[in-house]
Formats: sequence, structure tokens, C-alpha cells
Amino acid sequence: MTSTQQVAAETFGRTETAMTLETLETPCLVLDTERMERNIARLRTRLDGLGVSLRPHLKTSKSAEVARRVMTTPEGPATVSTLKEAEQFASAGVRDMIYAVGITPSKLARVLELRARGVDLVVILDNVDQARAVAEASITSGMRIPAMIEIDCDGHRSGVAPANQALLLEIGQTLAAGAELRGVLTHAGDSYKGGGPQAQERFAEAERAAVVEAAQFLHASGLPCPVVSVGSTPTAHHALDLSGVTEVRAGVFVFFDLFMAGVGICQIDDIAMSVMATVIGHQREKGWIITDGGWMSLSRDRGTSKQAVDQGYGLVCDIEGKLYSDIIVADANQEHGILAARPGSGAQLPDLAVGDRVRILPNHACATGAQHDAYHVVRGTSHTVEARWSRFGGW
Amino acid sequence: MTSTQQVAAETFGRTETAMTLETLETPCLVLDTERMERNIARLRTRLDGLGVSLRPHLKTSKSAEVARRVMTTPEGPATVSTLKEAEQFASAGVRDMIYAVGITPSKLARVLELRARGVDLVVILDNVDQARAVAEASITSGMRIPAMIEIDCDGHRSGVAPANQALLLEIGQTLAAGAELRGVLTHAGDSYKGGGPQAQERFAEAERAAVVEAAQFLHASGLPCPVVSVGSTPTAHHALDLSGVTEVRAGVFVFFDLFMAGVGICQIDDIAMSVMATVIGHQREKGWIITDGGWMSLSRDRGTSKQAVDQGYGLVCDIEGKLYSDIIVADANQEHGILAARPGSGAQLPDLAVGDRVRILPNHACATGAQHDAYHVVRGTSHTVEARWSRFGGW
Repeated sequence: MTSTQQVAAETFGRTETAMTLETLETPCLVLDTERMERNIARLRTRLDGLGVSLRPHLKTSKSAEVARRVMTTPEGPATVSTLKEAEQFASAGVRDMIYAVGITPSKLARVLELRARGVDLVVILDNVDQARAVAEASITSGMRIPAMIEIDCDGHRSGVAPANQALLLEIGQTLAAGAELRGVLTHAGDSYKGGGPQAQERFAEAERAAVVEAAQFLHASGLPCPVVSVGSTPTAHHALDLSGVTEVRAGVFVFFDLFMAGVGICQIDDIAMSVMATVIGHQREKGWIITDGGWMSLSRDRGTSKQAVDQGYGLVCDIEGKLYSDIIVADANQEHGILAARPGSGAQLPDLAVGDRVRILPNHACATGAQHDAYHVVRGTSHTVEARWSRFGGW
Repeated sequence: MTSTQQVAAETFGRTETAMTLETLETPCLVLDTERMERNIARLRTRLDGLGVSLRPHLKTSKSAEVARRVMTTPEGPATVSTLKEAEQFASAGVRDMIYAVGITPSKLARVLELRARGVDLVVILDNVDQARAVAEASITSGMRIPAMIEIDCDGHRSGVAPANQALLLEIGQTLAAGAELRGVLTHAGDSYKGGGPQAQERFAEAERAAVVEAAQFLHASGLPCPVVSVGSTPTAHHALDLSGVTEVRAGVFVFFDLFMAGVGICQIDDIAMSVMATVIGHQREKGWIITDGGWMSLSRDRGTSKQAVDQGYGLVCDIEGKLYSDIIVADANQEHGILAARPGSGAQLPDLAVGDRVRILPNHACATGAQHDAYHVVRGTSHTVEARWSRFGGW
């Protein structure tokens, strides 16, 4: 047991007889599973209607307990962003994963170890150097590594432009020489810009069109392309037609966050994860309440700073998750959060004493979650902590 | 052993015969101890000249190995920002610590546990509610808890204004009734604004004047005030006179970072900590190199975004730590970093192939370090990894 776990275990030891929101050590992560289950059901229903399968991205939760609930079966499918996630979820029984960050030659040994354990781990790539490394590792090991070609649908990050047929063909043929071409995959980075439902429908269609174009070209060239994968939480919630697509990847939909609310993909009261903090003081003449929830617990993510509504370091709720009107974490130091009325709102600070607790909705669930080693699970407005679900970090 | 440690141990298992920068898994944290030792020596020499002691803030490193080198003795003194740090460093032998975040009643049980282990852990506070809770816990436990009054020298965060004598007296008398008034403490948050050496000299003098004024008032009121503590890395490096001050706290000076370089407190080549990442692809027509060093490894800290020189998510060096001219991490996703020339610089991207490695200097050492569970120790331009120093997170 690490010291992190020891402290956590001690925390629970102390609160064994009364595991409630009042007795947890702060700052800590609170997960409302009622909201989480609603978020999962909403996307599943939507994708069922479109006739595609869901391959949830587990980078948001990094938790076997959350993974089990968000996946459609205990064995997957799932998406991961690190080999550490692949190894952890493999140990929890997941057998079908895409490692959706471009592979490097030095990481292939760990990929092969997982495949040797019976895990169908698929890598992704967008250049011939990577394809050659994957083919060579396949030949050397005697294990055909499946790889997908990453497609660039909007100039946002990595990937091959779907019109670059020469490169698609060269990568496909290089892989076919020793590895396995499993398909094509893209991610609509543009969808994070927002722009309303019609813009999201266009982003979703651009995502679909790019990857289907590449898949059709590979098929026409005599190469296999069984999997056609798209994904982002905004486009997953707005795609009207996914013809030619076999699966959708999405991650943050499981918890949602203020950024996604700002993009219009969820309501504030869909946000399932919060950071609980304790009041440590006031600066009344400045209109501030000081808590022990600084950026170390909230993360440095300020993703809403360029949205229409800047939520500071987070939006403040009471201990039950009920929103205070227009109270935000206006600033944060490493272990201090400064609660204040949103500028211009005229809102009144709540009457909170030293020792009182608040819950803060995060800008970005993936970033905030990563600052913690566990979720403390509640349902709705209950104060009872039903479970502690551990989460991991690292690579 | 947790899975984090297992993976780390496996990483080292693989590289046992050749522990070099080329064989570490990426992304990972690299610490150049030559630079670190230079940074420590510089501040020690300065404070020796001013006749005050150094109480380093260990929140930056969260590592027993770094703590041992930055403290003046193995037992301290030291400053911490969480009780987890206090517990971890107590287990490593540290006996003299200030927990420099306002105490809450619910945290006093852990404070008492540490004091019962022989650790002189001091709490801080700025209101009567906290003082009453500390006095009551002292009486109930039969252990006098030492507490310092936090002074607000610049309206930046917490603390009692030094001119608020009524509040100082009430807190001091409340503590004296059962606990121990150990002294006064302040932090010049203003010093992070920069402004050049003369501005920093003024911030340092404001910090000194505020806390000495409060100490003199407490003494004149017949209350004890043996410790008079100031501290921030910028003011520690600029104070011209510290009359009346007994100790200086500073944290980030041990590693430095781009933010501190932007404030003018260090040079770029003083920055001792970097994130090593591997090239996973290119988008040549966009002038981008893509790496596996995204914001999960760099942190979301964009502290230089409001400075004169915006360093993006970090400044890019080669594997030996030699700076590429004007190449920054222009954008980052969770596990992707986008390297590009600084806008307007006309710099050329280095000729890096898939699999090549770079080292990225961080905006904020405290935030970037917190994304990792270990430092990989090198000296200067050597590729040999001399040690793996673990670090912890959590509360």
C-alpha cells in the first residue's frame, strides 16, 4: 500500500461508522452516480438509435469501477490514452481497447506484452515510420499488431488528410506487410469550439465524411478496413447520420463538466463530479470566502475562460450539490481557493462559517479528476458516502 | 506496491542495464541536480548574508530526497502545504514544520497525531473561530498546539491586516488561553506580478514591514511572538534588509521555472526540472511536431500567458536540456503536445524524427511536478539516469 492509500485508508478508518460528506478529509473528489448513470443512459440511447456501438474513452475516469459502468460489456470495447490505462484496465478484465495516441517504437514492447496476455490492444498511427516500426515488431515477435490509421478531419492535431491517398496507401501497404490494418479513426477537435447545435451537426458530419472517405479509398485499394471510428463528446451528441461508421468514441460525457455545459452539450445539473472543499477563512471587505480547495485539487484548467461564461476555477455548490447562484472560484493558489460573486452578477456570498463545506463543479472533468486518487461516491443529495473508487495516474 | 509503482518498477527493470534518457518511458520528469544544487546554494548564500534562516517550502518537490538536499538539516526547518506532506516528511525524519494553509477544525486530529509522534508541527490561522478551535483541541488533548497568525501584507489572499490590532489581540489572547502563539507569518503574493528588481525590493520591504509591525504589536501587548516569518521566491531573492524577521520561506527556487524566469528571478538555464517527451508525428504543412507530452504531463498551468513572453505550455530543449531557439509547446491535448515556432519568431523547427526525444521546461514547477510520481535524476548534459526519486500527491 502506498502512503497515498494509507492516508486514504486512515481517512476511511476514522469515518468508518459514519461515512458521510461531513467526515471526509478535504479537498476530495465526490461522484454523484445518479447523474453519471443518467449521462451514460443518454448517450447509449442516442447511439443505439444511430446503429453504432459505443467505445467509451476511459481517460476521463481512470477507474475500473467507472469503466465497468460506462462500457457495454465487462470486456469492452474501450478507448485509452496511455499504456498505463491499457495495463490497468486489462488487469480489470477489459479485452478490447484502442490506444488512441500515436504509437512510438519504444512503446511496442508494452503493447506486445498486453497482446500476449490476450488483450486485443490496437495502436494508431499517421506516418510511414510508425507503420514500419509496427510491421517490424509484428514480424520479430510473431504477433500481428493491429493498427488504425488516424485521419485528420479538421486540421486540429494529428492524422492523415483523407484526400492524401498516396500516404494512406503507403501506410496501409506497409502495415499489411507484417502487421494488421484494423481501420481508420478520427476525432473532431473542432467540436470543442462550440457554436450551437447546427455547428455541432456540421462537425459531426465532417468527422463522419473524413473517415468514411478514407475507409472507402482503402477498401477500393484492396486493403482491409473493418473498423471506422469517430468520436468526441459534442459530435456524439449531435450526429444525425453515422452511415459508414462502426463505432463512436467519447469520454467526458460520463461526468460532463462546465466546459461541456458552455459548449451546450449538457446542463449544469448533469455534472456528476465535484471537488469538496472546506471553508478556512473570510476576507469580508473583499467579498471573499477562502477554502482549502486550490488549483492542486481543481487543476489549473481554465477552459471556460474563452467561453461566453467564464466560470473561474469552478462553480460553487453547497454540500449537497445545489448551486449557489453566481458564486465561482474566482482565483486559486496551490491549496487555497477564493470564492467570490461572479463579476457583475451582484450575487450575495452565502453565509458560510469556518469548517463549512462546499462542492465545486470543475471546468474539465479529465483534468480535475487527474489531481485525485479516488472518487467518493454519493447518490443525489444524500450525504452518505457509499463507496471509495480508486483511480490511477501516470503512464 | 500500487500499480503506479509496479509500472515504474517495470520501467526500471527493463532499463536496468542501461538506465539512460533514451530508455526511460515517456512522458516523464527529469531533474538536473547540478542546476538544483546551484539554485539551493544561491539562496542559502543570500540569506546567510541577511542573517535569517531558510525554511524551504516542500510543496514544490513533495519528495524526501529533494527535501533532504534543500533543508539546512535533516530535521528541518521546513514548510508544507498539506497534512499529507507533513505526514510524509515526518516519516522521513523531519521534525520542524509549519503547515502554511489556514487550519480547519476537522484537520486538528491529524495535527495532534503528528505532534504526538514528536513532530513540532505548527498551524496557521487568521480568525477567532480557528483560534478557538485550536485552543479547545489543545485543552482537550492536553497538547498545546502552536499556531502562527497569518498576516496580509498586500491584499492578495488570506491574513489579518497588520493595522487590525483588535483582531490580532483577540486571536492572540484566544490562543494563549490553551494553545501556543508561536509567531506571525506572511507571503507577498504581489511579488508574482514581476515589475523588475526595484519593484521586488519594495514587495520584500512591504512583506517585512507588515509582519514586523504585527510582531511588535503582539510583543507590546504582552503576548509571545518568537517567530517572524516571511516568504516568496521573488522577495527572498530581492530583500535588502530583513531586520526583525527570523526566517524566510520559499519553495520554487529549488527548481525554478519559466514563470520565475519571466518575473526575472532566474535565467532559463537555471530551470532544473523538465518533462521528457517522444516525437510521435509531424504535421509539416502546419509547422508542427507532435509529441506524447500533453497537458497531463505538463499540467494545465499557463502562468506565462500574461507575462511579456508567453511560453505556451513550455519551452523545448533537446534530450540534453539544450534550448532550441524559440520552439514552444504551442498547444496541448491530454496526451499530445504540439511543438511549433513561437509566433513571429521565424524560428525553424528542429529536424526530429518519430521516436526522437525532447525535454520541455515547465511554466510552473509545482504544477508540472504534481502530474508525476517520480523524478529521474541526471547531472548536467549526462544521459545517465542516476536515480529515481519518488514523489507523492494527495492530501
